[in-house]
Amino acid sequence: MLRFTQIARQGEARRGQLELNHGVVETPVFMPVGTFGAVKTIEPRDLLSLDTRILLGNTFHLMLRPGADVIELHGGLHRFMGWNRPILTDSGGFQVFSLARLRRMDDSGVLFRSPFDGSEVFLGPEESIRMQRVLNSDIAMIFDDCTPYPATEEQARSSMERSLIWAERSKQAFEGSDNSLFGIIQGGMYPELRELSLKNLLGIGFDGYAIGGLSVGEPKQQMYEMLNIVAPQLPEGRPRYLMGVGTPEDIVYGVKCGVDMFDCVLPTRNARNGWLYTSDGVVKIRNKKYRDDVRPVDEGCSCPCCENFTRSYLRHLYRVNEPLCARLCTLHNLQHFLNLMERIRAAIEQRTFDQLCLEFDV
Amino acid sequence: MLRFTQIARQGEARRGQLELNHGVVETPVFMPVGTFGAVKTIEPRDLLSLDTRILLGNTFHLMLRPGADVIELHGGLHRFMGWNRPILTDSGGFQVFSLARLRRMDDSGVLFRSPFDGSEVFLGPEESIRMQRVLNSDIAMIFDDCTPYPATEEQARSSMERSLIWAERSKQAFEGSDNSLFGIIQGGMYPELRELSLKNLLGIGFDGYAIGGLSVGEPKQQMYEMLNIVAPQLPEGRPRYLMGVGTPEDIVYGVKCGVDMFDCVLPTRNARNGWLYTSDGVVKIRNKKYRDDVRPVDEGCSCPCCENFTRSYLRHLYRVNEPLCARLCTLHNLQHFLNLMERIRAAIEQRTFDQLCLEFDV
Repeated sequence: MLRFTQIARQGEARRGQLELNHGVVETPVFMPVGTFGAVKTIEPRDLLSLDTRILLGNTFHLMLRPGADVIELHGGLHRFMGWNRPILTDSGGFQVFSLARLRRMDDSGVLFRSPFDGSEVFLGPEESIRMQRVLNSDIAMIFDDCTPYPATEEQARSSMERSLIWAERSKQAFEGSDNSLFGIIQGGMYPELRELSLKNLLGIGFDGYAIGGLSVGEPKQQMYEMLNIVAPQLPEGRPRYLMGVGTPEDIVYGVKCGVDMFDCVLPTRNARNGWLYTSDGVVKIRNKKYRDDVRPVDEGCSCPCCENFTRSYLRHLYRVNEPLCARLCTLHNLQHFLNLMERIRAAIEQRTFDQLCLEFDV
Repeated sequence: MLRFTQIARQGEARRGQLELNHGVVETPVFMPVGTFGAVKTIEPRDLLSLDTRILLGNTFHLMLRPGADVIELHGGLHRFMGWNRPILTDSGGFQVFSLARLRRMDDSGVLFRSPFDGSEVFLGPEESIRMQRVLNSDIAMIFDDCTPYPATEEQARSSMERSLIWAERSKQAFEGSDNSLFGIIQGGMYPELRELSLKNLLGIGFDGYAIGGLSVGEPKQQMYEMLNIVAPQLPEGRPRYLMGVGTPEDIVYGVKCGVDMFDCVLPTRNARNGWLYTSDGVVKIRNKKYRDDVRPVDEGCSCPCCENFTRSYLRHLYRVNEPLCARLCTLHNLQHFLNLMERIRAAIEQRTFDQLCLEFDV
């Protein structure tokens, strides 16, 4: 099931509630990424204490390891990873192109070599949806062909058209599930192709609509332009998801254009590299200047890292490769992103979202 | 301060309470190892929820990184690492010999090259105690020369005699501290040397007495024999600490000989290699047979790992190198060791410790 309710609005920015089989998600929302059935270094109870409402899982990775049968044995991804709140899974399309060695691709799907053991694997819309049904994610994504950047109009068109064929077949394969399925708009950097993609997806009919093929290497300004064109055309009563985005300012800009859902590895991956988001910009904890800095990472932050440890201590952990460092930095960065979403939601309700946009210069 | 009270006894096994500046420690106790100012993958709040009462910190490592001045800036190791309960620090002697490239060694101390940056560092009793005073550990250890195995009687004697000189100087350097200082008995595998070491240490006078130079590569039977000879000779009213030991059965045997305190990297290091201690023996989680095993690691265990996850999930995390795996396994193994200590303490109180020894075949 999926029920989406708008409870406030300012300009295009929407404040909503998304009811899913495993619970209610307040939007706009940021979804931490749990690629292999775990947010790296973090337990589900940590995610609960940060008030995470929904996670993203990767079909491609989980299909290869541990494989569908192991997850089926657990009755789905929720039980497997010990997470009772909603999960959205991607379709694996994006990862097939970015991580695997392709063997053959046509309208039926993609034959590729597993980057883990070299075995040949076939993934098409039916296979992706079958795996996502095993995962029992609250929201599944259609299997699509993510148009790379740059792409000629002809390339973008044929990729978008293939995605539409797969969208149709994804929908058929999802028939009978009580979870939800989102369509993904492609079309590269060509507004007319984006419109055509959306029009056809609306014809098929999905529970929500995602914007794919952005944040794939194009200049930020081009992403913003495309977002500004595409997002407001999405149907009003359905949740809107901008895939793989992004930085705090990208998220604020996305919300300004009317997007409800975001996911990105930035807070978690950067944490493992010692990049910490703060209200005063990024702190690169390895920097020598933090050697004697006994302040918390962010004075105003209430995460378990800032409440208990100094920058000096974190820098020490980073230098000596203590695994606790990645965990503390991840807790902090996730808190920072989730706090940002909380601020965004409150700002829309209080009609102060304009000021928040000014603060982020978007 | 240090106050040691025996509250029960069965044979040589003692059930006690150790009052230290940062709190009360129930003995026999196992001290998790936090080498660099962190128990790997684990936060202090996790240690509290496992009811850890005392940690071990490594002077050698902390002296080299982050260095005394950084810890001094925090007012000691407790504030630096966010741990408010007692800490025992070793003297660095053992690590100097096992980890560093020696340049010169005489009665004044040891000149060595830092394994981290190659710089020359000098460590003697005065330097070790000065560092431990900066760390402000509740229990400091004398700087000693840990006799390797095997050693001739002559080698063991001269090493033991040097340790006595350093014991005296450690005591002087500790003068005026309100924390506690433990002596370390050396003498290799020679009972008369051990007796001589103890007699001289008693003459100097310490707050507690440790048995050093065991679990350094000798056959287990030889360690047990030596322990059986040395431990009962230690003064009744002072805490007794068996350094670097050990497996669950080693610990039970140590308690049987009258030891009160233990430390070892086994539960934490083995956790990172996917070795899990259970009531039914060791589970090597990487093993293929756990692929489809949806039971918890240990059915009777109440740790956050066993309460929430299956063996199958843990094996998956291990195979895909998820950092959460090391954390969950560490939480479990520490819980297992701390539960063992709880069982030992209860058994001595209830005079059932004999049965517990039978169960562990010691």
